[in-house]
Amino acid sequence: MEITTLKDIAQQLGISISTVSKALKGYPDVSKATRDRVLLMARKLNYTPNQLAVNLRTKQTKTIGVIIPTTVHHFFSKVIDGIIEEAEKKGYLVIILQSNEKLFLEKLHVNLLLDKRVDGILISLSNTTTEYVHLKKIASRNIPLVLFDKVAPSVACSSVAIDDKKAAYEAVVHLIEKGYKKIAHFRAGLNAQNSIDRFEGYKKALKDHTIPFDPSLVYMCANNTDFEDGYANAQLLIKEHPDVDAVFSITDLVAIGVIKYFNEQKIQIPAQVAVVGFSNWFMSTVISPTLSTIEQPSYDMGVIATEILLNEIEGIQKKEVITHQNIILPTTFIERESS
Amino acid sequence: MEITTLKDIAQQLGISISTVSKALKGYPDVSKATRDRVLLMARKLNYTPNQLAVNLRTKQTKTIGVIIPTTVHHFFSKVIDGIIEEAEKKGYLVIILQSNEKLFLEKLHVNLLLDKRVDGILISLSNTTTEYVHLKKIASRNIPLVLFDKVAPSVACSSVAIDDKKAAYEAVVHLIEKGYKKIAHFRAGLNAQNSIDRFEGYKKALKDHTIPFDPSLVYMCANNTDFEDGYANAQLLIKEHPDVDAVFSITDLVAIGVIKYFNEQKIQIPAQVAVVGFSNWFMSTVISPTLSTIEQPSYDMGVIATEILLNEIEGIQKKEVITHQNIILPTTFIERESS
Repeated sequence: MEITTLKDIAQQLGISISTVSKALKGYPDVSKATRDRVLLMARKLNYTPNQLAVNLRTKQTKTIGVIIPTTVHHFFSKVIDGIIEEAEKKGYLVIILQSNEKLFLEKLHVNLLLDKRVDGILISLSNTTTEYVHLKKIASRNIPLVLFDKVAPSVACSSVAIDDKKAAYEAVVHLIEKGYKKIAHFRAGLNAQNSIDRFEGYKKALKDHTIPFDPSLVYMCANNTDFEDGYANAQLLIKEHPDVDAVFSITDLVAIGVIKYFNEQKIQIPAQVAVVGFSNWFMSTVISPTLSTIEQPSYDMGVIATEILLNEIEGIQKKEVITHQNIILPTTFIERESS
Repeated sequence: MEITTLKDIAQQLGISISTVSKALKGYPDVSKATRDRVLLMARKLNYTPNQLAVNLRTKQTKTIGVIIPTTVHHFFSKVIDGIIEEAEKKGYLVIILQSNEKLFLEKLHVNLLLDKRVDGILISLSNTTTEYVHLKKIASRNIPLVLFDKVAPSVACSSVAIDDKKAAYEAVVHLIEKGYKKIAHFRAGLNAQNSIDRFEGYKKALKDHTIPFDPSLVYMCANNTDFEDGYANAQLLIKEHPDVDAVFSITDLVAIGVIKYFNEQKIQIPAQVAVVGFSNWFMSTVISPTLSTIEQPSYDMGVIATEILLNEIEGIQKKEVITHQNIILPTTFIERESS
């Protein structure tokens, strides 16, 4: 933590700080002999230029920050790949922070990124984010913010997401058209916008096909909407509704937990109960039966969100007026063995 | 990016910077009227104290940096969960950087973390890291470094890893004892220490059981040692060695790619070819057949590496002499249907 400064070098050599600074920058008004002494001492003391000070002068850190809820979902790994690749092309480094679905960590991370003077911020909101003061703080600092996947419509910034309601609607309509009537839904938290929207899509599909909505067929994923949630909810569902004939899961990870439980119990998929997931994780083609799901662009989402962010960063530097973009990427339903 | 400074507030009010500073800190020698004016202006200009400047005074940022090769492997997601949980307990925030297995990005990330003045650094080395000057730079700044999973024995720092050679040895001995004789190995890059060690364990198991080592049975994972590598190598293997009877894969992800190809080709697992993975990813219990593998502690690895790092950070603050710890965590072979 002891950082060598120009002052340290100057003191060791008994010369002025400005001479040291000039010598390190190769100014011609410093003699070669002095420059050599300075460079030698700089090396001896492990001096490296304070990048931060340099950056404060240019007002750019060439760094962007990304806050994601978790890396357990393959979806976010792919989004991050897209972000890093796009950022790298333009010479930006990417700092990743993980909120673990906790609002207080998300807030701390926003502060940290502002302190660390990143040029722009990308956020996929945690499932527990119910207030947006920390997001407004970013805008007030004139730092571009782009929300992706889990967005908040009330925050004035650019965003890249999918139409969760429409995608869920199509998946449930597919099940209804296949003849399934008693369709359960495994959803995530009550605050997360994509969880709300997928639930709305599920309800609308039932309504449009005059299937009465039964709230007891909706199960919350108490954990992190992961594999264990699917497994535990499937167990509960079969106990409470032995006549259920389909499950629409909020993610593929949850759906795969459902499949594991059904396989163990010799419950035939899709003859007895159909299963549909969301995101088209590569594992959905590997498990048996293969999983019907919704293809959700992940890598492209990362690339596009980063493109918009870097454009806004550039715009701010040029003192241009920034127009926010709210992009909706298309999704596709993929039918496989499980339905 | 326009950051309000004490100077801005002072200029707006026509008072001195030191008065503004004292007012914000609540010094009693500043009148209430002045303090109120300063606070009002600070709010108006969106002033927030420069945390970095504060931290430079206390010489602590309460932030640690983590560099990982990728988040595609569930293993690293779990390690990160362990790191974040342990860091959170002690009031530290965690910055994650992803090298994507590229040495130049790993170097840039080390520089970035040093610039951002983190208190300590955790690294799992990229597969292409062949030189360690950037790691030595961390030590020269007196910042603790703990390597985990992918370590470099020649770097003087603490580390937390497993005995890859021993774990691989046990897995291959298991295959030999089950009667398999023509055992292929799908390995990662030639530089990565854990890839080297697992390969050595594979060779030693063959040698100790007088099975001749056949280099043509060793396949490199050209991609990122992921699912596609396993799938592509399995295809090649069956073409080149139709009489192969077992595959020992460097990771579960690779092994699951192998299983997918064999399932598609109706190659019976384990009757015709056995498959063994490495890491005990939860998916290894879900696929069909379930995958024999090596249980590799991930969450615990994150917790322990972070414990050591935070202790070293504390030790340096107290000007204690730091003794490096090189921890080897135990692994267990888990037999399932695939062997």
